[in-house]
Amino acid sequence: MRMELAEDQLVAAVARVLSGRAPGVLVGPGDDAAIVEPARGSMLVTTDMLLDGVHFDLGAIAPTDLGSKSIVVNVSDIAAMGGSPRYAVVSLGLPPTIEMPWVIELYGGMRAACDEYALSLVGGDTSRAEAVTIAVAVIGDVAPRSAVTRDGARPGDLIAVTGSLGGAAGGFLLSRLHPSRLGRALSEPWGRALLEALHRPVARVGEGQTLARAGATAMMDLSDGLAKDLSRLCAASGCGARVRLDDVPVSAAVRAAGDVLGVDPLELALSGGEDYELLATLDATALDRARDELRERFGVTLTEVGVIIDEGLVAVDADGEHRLEPKGWDHFSDGG
Amino acid sequence: MRMELAEDQLVAAVARVLSGRAPGVLVGPGDDAAIVEPARGSMLVTTDMLLDGVHFDLGAIAPTDLGSKSIVVNVSDIAAMGGSPRYAVVSLGLPPTIEMPWVIELYGGMRAACDEYALSLVGGDTSRAEAVTIAVAVIGDVAPRSAVTRDGARPGDLIAVTGSLGGAAGGFLLSRLHPSRLGRALSEPWGRALLEALHRPVARVGEGQTLARAGATAMMDLSDGLAKDLSRLCAASGCGARVRLDDVPVSAAVRAAGDVLGVDPLELALSGGEDYELLATLDATALDRARDELRERFGVTLTEVGVIIDEGLVAVDADGEHRLEPKGWDHFSDGG
Repeated sequence: MRMELAEDQLVAAVARVLSGRAPGVLVGPGDDAAIVEPARGSMLVTTDMLLDGVHFDLGAIAPTDLGSKSIVVNVSDIAAMGGSPRYAVVSLGLPPTIEMPWVIELYGGMRAACDEYALSLVGGDTSRAEAVTIAVAVIGDVAPRSAVTRDGARPGDLIAVTGSLGGAAGGFLLSRLHPSRLGRALSEPWGRALLEALHRPVARVGEGQTLARAGATAMMDLSDGLAKDLSRLCAASGCGARVRLDDVPVSAAVRAAGDVLGVDPLELALSGGEDYELLATLDATALDRARDELRERFGVTLTEVGVIIDEGLVAVDADGEHRLEPKGWDHFSDGG
Repeated sequence: MRMELAEDQLVAAVARVLSGRAPGVLVGPGDDAAIVEPARGSMLVTTDMLLDGVHFDLGAIAPTDLGSKSIVVNVSDIAAMGGSPRYAVVSLGLPPTIEMPWVIELYGGMRAACDEYALSLVGGDTSRAEAVTIAVAVIGDVAPRSAVTRDGARPGDLIAVTGSLGGAAGGFLLSRLHPSRLGRALSEPWGRALLEALHRPVARVGEGQTLARAGATAMMDLSDGLAKDLSRLCAASGCGARVRLDDVPVSAAVRAAGDVLGVDPLELALSGGEDYELLATLDATALDRARDELRERFGVTLTEVGVIIDEGLVAVDADGEHRLEPKGWDHFSDGG
């Protein structure tokens, strides 16, 4: 890992944030590479980058939340395979205007998320950049041949999602409101819930493992919206899907905020992204078993929203059938 | 891993570049996470980010070279531990002005470097960004308890470096010359050698393993210049160093270019970065053995440049002793 600028000082400060118990870590941050115990079973590897002005708004998100989210979005990818996260490394690009306390809080948020999901932050690289840039890679493990990929869905499998959808997109729209309207919204429970959905997403690690054990045939996390991500799962599996729109679990906060945000709650639930809920396909017996276990162990709902079919993406509601458009979440591009 | 924009098309194109033999890879790019065989022995993890305008100049480097370099600088960190690279993931930030063929060539360069160093490019994430941003993480392995860290140098150990130094910094200065002067320089073998040192660095993987087996007590790669990096090795090891300046292996191309570049070749060798040669400490017997093996197996020189002492950084030349200033390589910040 490279260090530059007057940065050995920053690295030392960060090393203090990262010090302490770190399971599996033989040599942590500060050397050319971290040395860790190998993954058990098969190894999972993923990476996701967050950029100011694309994935977040530097002025609107607290550095601890941003640090946490940069870890969680990667952990969510490991969860979506049915695995356990083990290690993270971070490449950080910082404009010269960023001050040390902000960076320490950012790393504090990363560390807190790593503690919560039981992975170790083992190294990083810091560079000058025009915009705050956070690239995280997470390594996880999974028992051999038990990872759940996207390509195993078969016609007749039921389609299920964890939790509720649209909250993060609602939080994003809320954050773009005029300050006076934003202030009023934040005096309501639903307003705070929406911003929390955007800034403090949760990765469904135990839930993903439960779905894998129950016999999920395909699984992925919902980062770009149900419609878009389901179209990807279907493309990978070589099949189609029929979704009952009335059964889509729209976030209660989004329903409460619908008028203020001026959007159709169902539309946000289908096309809004960054919910990081899990989308899984499985047979009826497996779904029942997984639903019970998710409720009992995690207090999380699992909702059946449709069925895998031979081909095509179909939405069904009281008006009949129409094509489910795989519109995705394009972050800040059309929002501001 | 997240996908966005009208980007499934890009991802598909990239997947074609990345397809083919990939040792250890059970599921490659395209799912939430890659699934790979676990590391053997201990696992090494590193990450490095390259940013346009900070680490490279988009107009001056070919995309294949940039792709290759983004892998090589990470592989070099694995080499500096005495390990073997196994897997890479890439987070890529691209401005909308970048065209698809450029991205394909970039990935082609990454793939070629992965082939050369026998690692597998297993996944990635692509986002919109203001500037081209390439964050790579590489996972490697090393036999248990045989990784060479920075903190094992002891007084009396000899200090050695592989290859020659200053070439990449010379290439950087050359690239900033007026086009007419640059054109003349590139008609000379040393001009082409300097640009190649900057754009096509080599990671010393076999050499690092040889040094580890020979008994290196500490090792790191030279990314920020001998003076700065040696000061870091000494700080980690709790010791000092005495360097004989006349023995520092200054790049022949830098010596040839000295007048054109208007710099002291020795200064570039000490303070210029990005050479990605290895810096190691070891006893006299180990040094002799490693030197012979590096020459015979890799055609690479290993040069003794000084000795580890109790404390302080000392440079020795015909004028006597003076302090070795740990000045580092600050990329583009003072170069233009």
